[in-house]
Amino acid sequence: MMHGEIAALLKRVERGELTAEDAMLRLKMEPFEDLGYARVDHHRALRQGAAEVIYGAGKTPEQIEGIARSMLAHGQRAVLVTRLSPDAARQLQERLPMMYHEVCRVGVFGKPPEPDGHGFVVVATGGTSDIPVAEEAAVTAEVLGSRVQRLYDVGVSGLHRLLHELEPIMRARAIVAVAGMEGALASVLGGLADCPVIAVPTSVGYGASFGGLAALLSMLNSCASGVSVVNIDNGFGAGYLASMIDHLGD
Amino acid sequence: MMHGEIAALLKRVERGELTAEDAMLRLKMEPFEDLGYARVDHHRALRQGAAEVIYGAGKTPEQIEGIARSMLAHGQRAVLVTRLSPDAARQLQERLPMMYHEVCRVGVFGKPPEPDGHGFVVVATGGTSDIPVAEEAAVTAEVLGSRVQRLYDVGVSGLHRLLHELEPIMRARAIVAVAGMEGALASVLGGLADCPVIAVPTSVGYGASFGGLAALLSMLNSCASGVSVVNIDNGFGAGYLASMIDHLGD
Amino acid sequence: MMHGEIAALLKRVERGELTAEDAMLRLKMEPFEDLGYARVDHHRALRQGAAEVIYGAGKTPEQIEGIARSMLAHGQRAVLVTRLSPDAARQLQERLPMMYHEVCRVGVFGKPPEPDGHGFVVVATGGTSDIPVAEEAAVTAEVLGSRVQRLYDVGVSGLHRLLHELEPIMRARAIVAVAGMEGALASVLGGLADCPVIAVPTSVGYGASFGGLAALLSMLNSCASGVSVVNIDNGFGAGYLASMIDHLGD
Amino acid sequence: MMHGEIAALLKRVERGELTAEDAMLRLKMEPFEDLGYARVDHHRALRQGAAEVIYGAGKTPEQIEGIARSMLAHGQRAVLVTRLSPDAARQLQERLPMMYHEVCRVGVFGKPPEPDGHGFVVVATGGTSDIPVAEEAAVTAEVLGSRVQRLYDVGVSGLHRLLHELEPIMRARAIVAVAGMEGALASVLGGLADCPVIAVPTSVGYGASFGGLAALLSMLNSCASGVSVVNIDNGFGAGYLASMIDHLGD
Amino acid sequence: MMHGEIAALLKRVERGELTAEDAMLRLKMEPFEDLGYARVDHHRALRQGAAEVIYGAGKTPEQIEGIARSMLAHGQRAVLVTRLSPDAARQLQERLPMMYHEVCRVGVFGKPPEPDGHGFVVVATGGTSDIPVAEEAAVTAEVLGSRVQRLYDVGVSGLHRLLHELEPIMRARAIVAVAGMEGALASVLGGLADCPVIAVPTSVGYGASFGGLAALLSMLNSCASGVSVVNIDNGFGAGYLASMIDHLGD
Amino acid sequence: MMHGEIAALLKRVERGELTAEDAMLRLKMEPFEDLGYARVDHHRALRQGAAEVIYGAGKTPEQIEGIARSMLAHGQRAVLVTRLSPDAARQLQERLPMMYHEVCRVGVFGKPPEPDGHGFVVVATGGTSDIPVAEEAAVTAEVLGSRVQRLYDVGVSGLHRLLHELEPIMRARAIVAVAGMEGALASVLGGLADCPVIAVPTSVGYGASFGGLAALLSMLNSCASGVSVVNIDNGFGAGYLASMIDHLGD
Amino acid sequence: MMHGEIAALLKRVERGELTAEDAMLRLKMEPFEDLGYARVDHHRALRQGAAEVIYGAGKTPEQIEGIARSMLAHGQRAVLVTRLSPDAARQLQERLPMMYHEVCRVGVFGKPPEPDGHGFVVVATGGTSDIPVAEEAAVTAEVLGSRVQRLYDVGVSGLHRLLHELEPIMRARAIVAVAGMEGALASVLGGLADCPVIAVPTSVGYGASFGGLAALLSMLNSCASGVSVVNIDNGFGAGYLASMIDHLGD
Amino acid sequence: MMHGEIAALLKRVERGELTAEDAMLRLKMEPFEDLGYARVDHHRALRQGAAEVIYGAGKTPEQIEGIARSMLAHGQRAVLVTRLSPDAARQLQERLPMMYHEVCRVGVFGKPPEPDGHGFVVVATGGTSDIPVAEEAAVTAEVLGSRVQRLYDVGVSGLHRLLHELEPIMRARAIVAVAGMEGALASVLGGLADCPVIAVPTSVGYGASFGGLAALLSMLNSCASGVSVVNIDNGFGAGYLASMIDHLGD
Repeated sequence: MMHGEIAALLKRVERGELTAEDAMLRLKMEPFEDLGYARVDHHRALRQGAAEVIYGAGKTPEQIEGIARSMLAHGQRAVLVTRLSPDAARQLQERLPMMYHEVCRVGVFGKPPEPDGHGFVVVATGGTSDIPVAEEAAVTAEVLGSRVQRLYDVGVSGLHRLLHELEPIMRARAIVAVAGMEGALASVLGGLADCPVIAVPTSVGYGASFGGLAALLSMLNSCASGVSVVNIDNGFGAGYLASMIDHLGD
Repeated sequence: MMHGEIAALLKRVERGELTAEDAMLRLKMEPFEDLGYARVDHHRALRQGAAEVIYGAGKTPEQIEGIARSMLAHGQRAVLVTRLSPDAARQLQERLPMMYHEVCRVGVFGKPPEPDGHGFVVVATGGTSDIPVAEEAAVTAEVLGSRVQRLYDVGVSGLHRLLHELEPIMRARAIVAVAGMEGALASVLGGLADCPVIAVPTSVGYGASFGGLAALLSMLNSCASGVSVVNIDNGFGAGYLASMIDHLGD
Repeated sequence: MMHGEIAALLKRVERGELTAEDAMLRLKMEPFEDLGYARVDHHRALRQGAAEVIYGAGKTPEQIEGIARSMLAHGQRAVLVTRLSPDAARQLQERLPMMYHEVCRVGVFGKPPEPDGHGFVVVATGGTSDIPVAEEAAVTAEVLGSRVQRLYDVGVSGLHRLLHELEPIMRARAIVAVAGMEGALASVLGGLADCPVIAVPTSVGYGASFGGLAALLSMLNSCASGVSVVNIDNGFGAGYLASMIDHLGD
Repeated sequence: MMHGEIAALLKRVERGELTAEDAMLRLKMEPFEDLGYARVDHHRALRQGAAEVIYGAGKTPEQIEGIARSMLAHGQRAVLVTRLSPDAARQLQERLPMMYHEVCRVGVFGKPPEPDGHGFVVVATGGTSDIPVAEEAAVTAEVLGSRVQRLYDVGVSGLHRLLHELEPIMRARAIVAVAGMEGALASVLGGLADCPVIAVPTSVGYGASFGGLAALLSMLNSCASGVSVVNIDNGFGAGYLASMIDHLGD
Repeated sequence: MMHGEIAALLKRVERGELTAEDAMLRLKMEPFEDLGYARVDHHRALRQGAAEVIYGAGKTPEQIEGIARSMLAHGQRAVLVTRLSPDAARQLQERLPMMYHEVCRVGVFGKPPEPDGHGFVVVATGGTSDIPVAEEAAVTAEVLGSRVQRLYDVGVSGLHRLLHELEPIMRARAIVAVAGMEGALASVLGGLADCPVIAVPTSVGYGASFGGLAALLSMLNSCASGVSVVNIDNGFGAGYLASMIDHLGD
Repeated sequence: MMHGEIAALLKRVERGELTAEDAMLRLKMEPFEDLGYARVDHHRALRQGAAEVIYGAGKTPEQIEGIARSMLAHGQRAVLVTRLSPDAARQLQERLPMMYHEVCRVGVFGKPPEPDGHGFVVVATGGTSDIPVAEEAAVTAEVLGSRVQRLYDVGVSGLHRLLHELEPIMRARAIVAVAGMEGALASVLGGLADCPVIAVPTSVGYGASFGGLAALLSMLNSCASGVSVVNIDNGFGAGYLASMIDHLGD
Repeated sequence: MMHGEIAALLKRVERGELTAEDAMLRLKMEPFEDLGYARVDHHRALRQGAAEVIYGAGKTPEQIEGIARSMLAHGQRAVLVTRLSPDAARQLQERLPMMYHEVCRVGVFGKPPEPDGHGFVVVATGGTSDIPVAEEAAVTAEVLGSRVQRLYDVGVSGLHRLLHELEPIMRARAIVAVAGMEGALASVLGGLADCPVIAVPTSVGYGASFGGLAALLSMLNSCASGVSVVNIDNGFGAGYLASMIDHLGD
Repeated sequence: MMHGEIAALLKRVERGELTAEDAMLRLKMEPFEDLGYARVDHHRALRQGAAEVIYGAGKTPEQIEGIARSMLAHGQRAVLVTRLSPDAARQLQERLPMMYHEVCRVGVFGKPPEPDGHGFVVVATGGTSDIPVAEEAAVTAEVLGSRVQRLYDVGVSGLHRLLHELEPIMRARAIVAVAGMEGALASVLGGLADCPVIAVPTSVGYGASFGGLAALLSMLNSCASGVSVVNIDNGFGAGYLASMIDHLGD
């Protein structure tokens, strides 16, 4: 089902000729492409308003190539691949043009859009070791069309570094707070900002950080309003949500 | 510092006469009211764009009354009190007009605003037992100026109940997904909607639900994009964030 | 004790000449073969109605060969080896004919039976990364005489992929639902099907999936009736049980 | 949609006039009854082949009465209410005839069917304190049309009590193994029987039983084939599944 | 053994007439008073330099009275009783003069000393609900001879409240940081102060605070140097340690 | 089967007329008494060499009375009931002579034997609050025929109290070390004694004691040789095992 | 202090010339050998009645050699080294005669004694993969002078393998039950035997075995009397304790 | 801002010309050096009274070099790098003089000060395997200007080794107690000493030590007063705090 058809269908809904449920279900019943190992969904853009993403972990380069080719062939302009090892990236680049962000292990096929959000997204980290996860968030938001301002190494045990950056914090449309260990960054940012703060616990740390559990629990218990949490090390999810909020309009 | 003064200060920042940090810090150094047992913050509205909220658990009715009076005296139009027991509510109502929502144990002093968001918020539950937490979210969002549509008892083990409500799900500006036990509601909603989904695990259930831990972990691991999570039973936090997103504009 | 003898013994029970307990205990006292490192049980087929299985992890190729030869020598037609590394498989294949399923690391000695169940078993996965565990289930069920239909990558964050396959789901005799991360697949399948659903959490995922714990808890808390759970990554156990249910008759 | 209509619809599927998906989706879109606090599903029997069940915990007697009346009015012959406190039971019995099993806190409206399964279900417990959970399983299976044989207090620390009951164990169509503390009963039964064993960990015990976690983990790790597990104290779920297996035919 | 004797013994050590170990062991072998249910230690002051403390939980008023009388009879000037219920306090006050701090459930027999430390101790809390634990710390430190400055409700989600109190924070000799939920207060204080910060997680909160576990892990993972942690709700331990540090001299 | 018969059977085994297994299985197949709610085992003494014990938690006084009467009628001289509430004890004492130890909630029917072990058992506690669990151990060992020496309140934070009691520690045949909180008592005793030390963690404590988990883990990790652990608060199990060791002879 | 001196000292205690405590403390104050990285204790045999043991993990071959030489030089006849890697073993064997048991990674310097216990120790395992831990227990007990009977692969899911070995189980002086996964072996053995059963959970397994936690909890919750537990994979500790019990005499 | 300027600023505070807060905030707003991947803080010495420390884990040698050069260029005399691998150390030593302590993986740039504390710090370990963590503490304290006395391998299962060292324990200004496994060392030291005891749990051990969790919980539950805890394996944090206490004066 092509975009034109989808639009026509929706028009009929607007005119009352079709209920929303019926239209929706027709769309859902449309054939997706079954590659055997994956079912590629070519109208997901409709349902979720974003480019398709491939979770690279546990897939072979061949599988990733197959899924990406199928998406690009159906008109997807940019395809993001997360958790892509340098080795797999090299193999993919030999077959298909792909930009690879090594620090966060993200590959991008195709051409990301120009920034078209309503504001900008701040991505902040507590320390230097949180940067890989933060870059996953930042690159994701950029590929999805958001401007991103990075504020790295502004952890709460040196408050002045954070207070020095009050302006972007006060003006952001969404903030991604990336921190391991005690995870207090999200609470402090939540108290300073008046936009949604998406907290990303990281597995950085040792001992009683228990692989990010300490930061996760800390962030879930934040006293600041407007803070919500995604999975440990889930930079992608935070960047996706931040960009989604950045694009919510009028 | 009155609203006029705050505005003047901000004007100076715009004209370049004052840096943002300096302005911010002045605001922060403004006297708050120290009641001994609490420090009431009279320009929080500025910083976080919302009515002040009192977390009622662990406070005596006298303390709650003191904080609320102080807020109302400083011009706050509506004050929300969460986790307020029926007993404490009765004692408060004898002294100060307050609307009390018994099912979610929320009290409201003052007069909530007319809905002024950009869309509406869907609050959905997996089962009947999740309703108290959902109502905390719904009432919070309403008091903060959002229209709310409730979709209760639409758990994923009876999908048709959920598919029957596709229209509001597709049109919402933000969705609050409240579920205990296996918490799968957030993933399914996240796959259907194209707006932020705020997942609230509840402590409903028994045995291996471990007080909401099962639902919490399930929601944190959601494969759907656009889903973030707040603390177990934190209806308030979800309603607050949903309303914040509903008011993000242009 | 040969099959004929077993049958004779059971006849005597039917005729009331022997109590069931006495017969059972005689059988139990029969010599098994003690290889030193393992006690191979040659009348397990009687007690559990299935081919013997060797859990390959933690056994040397020599030990596996010894156990398999002993079983085949006692008339076992097919012997399944689970968790068999490619290296060990290669060593075994040099000595004894064995079919090796690399994706799920299962080896099969001998000749599996023709399908002789009453229906068919559906094996479904939430994502591509769950396929190895799913294949362990599918191959196990096939070796034990069941027909298997695979439905891979039908996770709940893209419901239409699952709804597209309603027919096999409605007709299956038993369903194996394999999913990591939030594990919601089992609940959704449990709500759609009217046969037993055997849920297999997988260790796929990262962060707060805690090695499959999130999926495990989610599945244990399923609101759908007819769902039960086996150990994380235990594809074998689920395939075994599904085939057992497929063979329950009249 | 009445039973006749459902049958007609299914006939059309058989004749190839309608795809299964289309039929299924029509059924799913059928109006259920929305009581405000619950959505009562009147063709669930079709989808899951069993009487509707009300999870009583967290519902008021008024809510339970409302749901039960709605079900009975739509032709449901028996309605099971689990986790029903004696107080709530008394209130309900004043308004609507209901049989109440106090030891397992289960209420039954209407008239259960005669046993119509293919065999019988064994419900076994490790100790005396596990009986309430076992009775929930047994009563559930009976109300759903299965014959049940109870084997109580046959824990593995006194093996002869279990070996004394080998006959019913060997002949059962499904076994429900209810045990707290170390939960070894499921493994031993799984090794003796050749039918599915559904393990129910109970929260009986103290200290390192951690509310049933010890038994749950033990049962999930069972070395015996054919064993699967339901939630801690979930007698209902086990009885439901056992009866479903008992009715699987031809 | 009286104080004079102890001093004499120590003199002999200084003169080399006795090894330290011998002296120590003689002291340790001194008779304590065996009350049957408790062994009251009358030279603990020597070993640990502080008044004896009675942990009130799990002791009857009679046992507490017995221990306290024994201590006072041996010359102890002040005896602290922690975790003393109001009921038990009333019973004790009928028999023996005791000051009772109801908010933190601490009783004090005898007459606390004048402040004799080298500086002062700051006791800070994140919120109002943390005050009972904070008061246990404050009263303990005061009874042990320290001056205490209380800074309550200075949680990190409203940083300006904390920054308003920079002076005492910069001047304190030791800081007790009491906070539940996300426990970030300790890290922020640790970054601002240059004295030891003793973090006390509290069990205040709900859901994923897991009885104080979230705050505990957060505090253990603090990035700020100079922070150490005591048990959840252990106000006494923190006050004791803070006062010990306050008295370390020259 | 009476004692004489058992003896005769064993004689035949000695003479080689019967294999041990055959004898054992005959004994096991002997009828036990099935009370419906419990299966009372009248030759357990043979198998385990001790008086039968009734775990009182979760049993009604009527059930306990029934089991006890059945045991006494079959010649058991003493019957121990653990976890017996004062209320249930009062009801039982009205019907059957029973000695009740209120501090540890243990009841004893019949007449305990004279001490007949090879030495004596030391039962030690870290603090006063551990005494109830310690008494359960001590009374159990006494009823089973051991002499017991109690060393209460000898926790490791006041080593001299422990060193004062070196003699019984060095001479004991078995030591039961009962401690909550940090559970270090078992390690220190294990280092001093040269007999088996049975460690009993208690649920005494608060916060990060997590209901005895801290003490349990600490004891399992003991560096001292000869230490083993029983369940949290399982005074009975420790007393039973200590008395069993005390009776191992020649 | 040589053995003769120790004996003389003890004689004086017997004659009442010296209290036990004084004697003990003198012994304790005896110089041990301080190697810098370890303090070798040359009268531990006195205190604990056994050969000294070196825990090899985390020590260099040089450190192990140093400690062993020091022990042998002071008259120790046999020295056990646990958790010794094959590499480290090879290096040690080049310098000092040592017997190395590769399957359990135990080295033995010197000459173990002839068996001199009162009976024999049974070491049983649930499966083949538990053998390395079981061998650590068996070799330890043998080096400490006990006879050992091994019963491997007698797990409870095939009861007849266990019942086949009733005789040694009934006659043993102590039983070591080694099992991973569900850990039920200890309960079943505890119900059959009338001697102490020492349960060793192993880290064998996967998924919800959580590195041995499932077996550990299961064993701690054993309903059988006479069962106690040591740390996961602690074969040494179990063998040590079993041999200690085997040597308790008269 | 140079040291002179800082002093001048503080003088103005003393003269009342400037409030402490204003001075503090000016200092905080001073530019730090932003290296892109890290924000190097050149007046931290002022705020926390100690040399800057680089947490080496997760930083490249280039990043560490950059940060260290920046610090040294601003007048820092000594810079500590923790968790520095031997490889990274070698690379760094080729470019910049650095002393490397291999056993604890700590590097030191520049010249540590002469000891200038008020007493000395004891660093004690339970076993040989705890030495690397202990050395991290000891080296840290030494670099920060404290004298350190090491007491290694004095675990509580051999009390005499500890009692042999009573003198330094009684005289220390602060004690760092490093122990894995059961972590009892902190409690015993806390009972003997009258100075602050900083407990460091280590991840040494296996099985139920759960990576240091057992020792951590044990130490948090210490009954001895004056004990506080830092993160598992956090030798640096303990050494830093001990030295801070050692320098608190008059």
